[in-house]
Amino acid sequence: SDVGRLLIQCADQPGLVAAVSDFLYRQNANITHLDQHSTDPQDGVFFQRTVFHLDGLAARWEDLEAAFASEVAARFPDMRWRFSATAKRRRVAIMVSKLDHCLLDLIWRSRRDELPIDIVMVIGNHPDLADTVRPFGVPFVHVPVTKETKAEAEARHLELLRGNVDLVVLARYMQIVSGDFLERVGVPTINIHHSFLPAFIGAGPYEKARSRGVKLVGATAHYVTEDLDEGPIIEQDVVRVSHQDSVEDLARRGADVERTVLSRAVRWHCEDRVARHGNTTVVFS
Amino acid sequence: SDVGRLLIQCADQPGLVAAVSDFLYRQNANITHLDQHSTDPQDGVFFQRTVFHLDGLAARWEDLEAAFASEVAARFPDMRWRFSATAKRRRVAIMVSKLDHCLLDLIWRSRRDELPIDIVMVIGNHPDLADTVRPFGVPFVHVPVTKETKAEAEARHLELLRGNVDLVVLARYMQIVSGDFLERVGVPTINIHHSFLPAFIGAGPYEKARSRGVKLVGATAHYVTEDLDEGPIIEQDVVRVSHQDSVEDLARRGADVERTVLSRAVRWHCEDRVARHGNTTVVFS
Amino acid sequence: SDVGRLLIQCADQPGLVAAVSDFLYRQNANITHLDQHSTDPQDGVFFQRTVFHLDGLAARWEDLEAAFASEVAARFPDMRWRFSATAKRRRVAIMVSKLDHCLLDLIWRSRRDELPIDIVMVIGNHPDLADTVRPFGVPFVHVPVTKETKAEAEARHLELLRGNVDLVVLARYMQIVSGDFLERVGVPTINIHHSFLPAFIGAGPYEKARSRGVKLVGATAHYVTEDLDEGPIIEQDVVRVSHQDSVEDLARRGADVERTVLSRAVRWHCEDRVARHGNTTVVFS
Amino acid sequence: SDVGRLLIQCADQPGLVAAVSDFLYRQNANITHLDQHSTDPQDGVFFQRTVFHLDGLAARWEDLEAAFASEVAARFPDMRWRFSATAKRRRVAIMVSKLDHCLLDLIWRSRRDELPIDIVMVIGNHPDLADTVRPFGVPFVHVPVTKETKAEAEARHLELLRGNVDLVVLARYMQIVSGDFLERVGVPTINIHHSFLPAFIGAGPYEKARSRGVKLVGATAHYVTEDLDEGPIIEQDVVRVSHQDSVEDLARRGADVERTVLSRAVRWHCEDRVARHGNTTVVFS
Repeated sequence: SDVGRLLIQCADQPGLVAAVSDFLYRQNANITHLDQHSTDPQDGVFFQRTVFHLDGLAARWEDLEAAFASEVAARFPDMRWRFSATAKRRRVAIMVSKLDHCLLDLIWRSRRDELPIDIVMVIGNHPDLADTVRPFGVPFVHVPVTKETKAEAEARHLELLRGNVDLVVLARYMQIVSGDFLERVGVPTINIHHSFLPAFIGAGPYEKARSRGVKLVGATAHYVTEDLDEGPIIEQDVVRVSHQDSVEDLARRGADVERTVLSRAVRWHCEDRVARHGNTTVVFS
Repeated sequence: SDVGRLLIQCADQPGLVAAVSDFLYRQNANITHLDQHSTDPQDGVFFQRTVFHLDGLAARWEDLEAAFASEVAARFPDMRWRFSATAKRRRVAIMVSKLDHCLLDLIWRSRRDELPIDIVMVIGNHPDLADTVRPFGVPFVHVPVTKETKAEAEARHLELLRGNVDLVVLARYMQIVSGDFLERVGVPTINIHHSFLPAFIGAGPYEKARSRGVKLVGATAHYVTEDLDEGPIIEQDVVRVSHQDSVEDLARRGADVERTVLSRAVRWHCEDRVARHGNTTVVFS
Repeated sequence: SDVGRLLIQCADQPGLVAAVSDFLYRQNANITHLDQHSTDPQDGVFFQRTVFHLDGLAARWEDLEAAFASEVAARFPDMRWRFSATAKRRRVAIMVSKLDHCLLDLIWRSRRDELPIDIVMVIGNHPDLADTVRPFGVPFVHVPVTKETKAEAEARHLELLRGNVDLVVLARYMQIVSGDFLERVGVPTINIHHSFLPAFIGAGPYEKARSRGVKLVGATAHYVTEDLDEGPIIEQDVVRVSHQDSVEDLARRGADVERTVLSRAVRWHCEDRVARHGNTTVVFS
Repeated sequence: SDVGRLLIQCADQPGLVAAVSDFLYRQNANITHLDQHSTDPQDGVFFQRTVFHLDGLAARWEDLEAAFASEVAARFPDMRWRFSATAKRRRVAIMVSKLDHCLLDLIWRSRRDELPIDIVMVIGNHPDLADTVRPFGVPFVHVPVTKETKAEAEARHLELLRGNVDLVVLARYMQIVSGDFLERVGVPTINIHHSFLPAFIGAGPYEKARSRGVKLVGATAHYVTEDLDEGPIIEQDVVRVSHQDSVEDLARRGADVERTVLSRAVRWHCEDRVARHGNTTVVFS
């Protein structure tokens, strides 16, 4: 609990790294990891993720933030910055339909402490996965969605989610969420799309992949934006397929990639490794 | 030179494997490798690639073909079949613009006997690669192409190619070839596209990849058809990229995938491993 | 249930494919997939896996086997052959210690019908995983093993396993099994080793990997023989690691590869895709 | 030419990042990339690679180094540090035997400016590759090596290399170099081993791989030390193989991995991305 992270984003200019590292040094913090990226040698955007060790950190967050605001951030007016406790697990809600592989993988990794998350609820537009979820002690809420009840359902979603979670994950949730929902939910939303975007946007990617005769199928985890399948990509991967594979085979092979890619994306997000830059991401290793 | 291949394609029906293997047995041939694929359990299309050893094969092609026609093919009227000599190297023409990596890889692998091909000519719409090609003893022909002279240029291409080659390879040839050309050239044409199709169809895929923020870039080797970037895919692969990579970096990383993918596709084609089925391919390993 | 498989292994000689395919044709079976491999062009060992469709197969196994024995196998005295019902799920026992990832993956894939197996029991030398297993309705048997009680424990294992299972899977079972056990259990035993064999044989491969500074870690599924970590390899894969990864990180990354590799190996084995040839395997795709 | 790099290695302690970044800021340099790694949260070894932009850098190296020595390095007595000009190409000698694939790949990438190196000579213990090398304008020196003449040959090597090159690359040079040579040559030496070390140490790795029946073959680029095949690993990769592959097929598939792995290692070394830490490496991306 003595380990913290500091995330920074602002217009690039000389002195940024010095200002931050000097500040941490004066606070008696030891930098144990630092990643920095500028989008351009000149006039780019500057991103920095700093991991530091500071004795008694748990009791000092408020002082630290106040000091940083006045001593550093004040000098760089456009700076967006955030301290974050490494020890703090993120509260995550998962939205599902009928497929269980991504959901189970997240639950399973959370239990193994492979993901620094607490899954605080699962919301399904179908009741099918209730029995899968409840043995793990995770509440399952069934919120049916039809064309007619969509607005109502989203209102129910917001009621459940707002203020209660740090992240929403769409784990093969086969519904489009509205821009209004995304804005009002107030936390990032990550989706797993079952293709190597931007190939096979929209419904039925494995059917399309089979019909096009591709030799690899993939999966893409991305932040959800109003434009379907167009949000900033966090992670992608692929697996080899062949002419022998039916659509069902592609779905089976793809399922392994989907869950791997989604769990990586959730992990990186929750470790503060992902920064958004326009419609792309900076992912610090 | 005692090793041959037999390729077969027809409507699936019982007795096909028996008919072919029985025929080869009666000819005293020993089957050393057999691959078979049916597109569906019922009413599918049947593909078979058979490699066999037969003493004195070189002198017996004509008899073998005549016997197969009357004893086997006559029983399956829709059968398309072809015998092929393993020892015979394919005559290949390569068409290029200014980029040398795919071209050099093919030349280099051909010299190392990694590809069963003789590169009989290189045609460039720019003169840039003449000096790269000629030290290898391969003729380079410069055929400039402009919007106005395109028809003329294709006529010149056909003059050079027709009857002289078994395969045309577009090795980053940055021109669209016409349907008329493809029909009249009379041999298959393979293209390498610098993206993981169907993502980033058309020009500038690395620019598009950078702008979309993908985490993998790829390459696709496919048979050329009239529909640009829509022909049957032979092989694809990808390589991991990151936010640190500029468009130039993507192009550099992608170049390695392009040449690998193209050389695999050429190899498999020339080893008779690739069968076309509609707009997809069957690739026997 | 009308689909069957025929597996054959014998000294290579002309007429083998013809004899088998002709037999199946006369039985009115349609070959839907055929893989064949000879270890050498001359005097090699011949392997063939044939998948066929035959109406009313379920009622005809006995006749089929008798006919094959007299009409085909009698002509090739060294032939080892076996018919196998595609629809029949294999009975599998899993042996574990304290780690759950490989176990859970097999259970989960079995439930999803991704693996054609019924997990009929889990045997643990520690009681830790009992609560993990029982909710799935799978019996868990705790058989403690100490240096002193090893013979006794193996006797108990044999009592549980003999005649009851088609396959034993060691899913990170951290005990060495004796040659006597392997012989008496009478069915194949598959192990997952947490390294890319033959690198890092024996205990502590992730510690060794970290200390050697490798850039990839891997996993190997193999048939168990008396020689520890030396049995015929069925499948291997790797994942990239870096200087940032601690031993725990390597174990975490490796766990994903272990479960993937083990489930592939179990699947291929149960689909009769794997033939043993000396200390290596032929794996038909 | 206004871009430089600063490499640092020392015992970890608070204030290191601040001291360096503050120094660069006072010199009016802008940090464009910074990678930092500590081997342990407590009492580890600290590594930092900093890329900076500084107007008129070319004329200021001497001042910069003197200032850094007195203002920073003096405060951290065990610090090893080095400034390096991004624009400066490294002088590289390549040692070969008869195989050309790694050599050609390095030459080809150097010509394409994919590698920031000038290949100043190629030394072969066989004359075979002279004709391959000379068309590229690179001197080829034939230095035969026999058991009897080894000492003599190494003396000749040192005569050619000492003071003339920044790096020696053994590109499938099938000879063991002595500890004495390594010490006296005074620059790092990188070797490509044709296996996934530590699997298949020593001669004939593809033969061993075939005999062990592995499902992947690999290659390893490492710094050469006195202990054969035991030096710090820079990069590794693998490619899938199958029971169909003969030893020659493994060598062919492996050749592609060898050249890819070696060129990455050379590139990373020449971009100052690789730091040695005991018998392992830190590789900054």
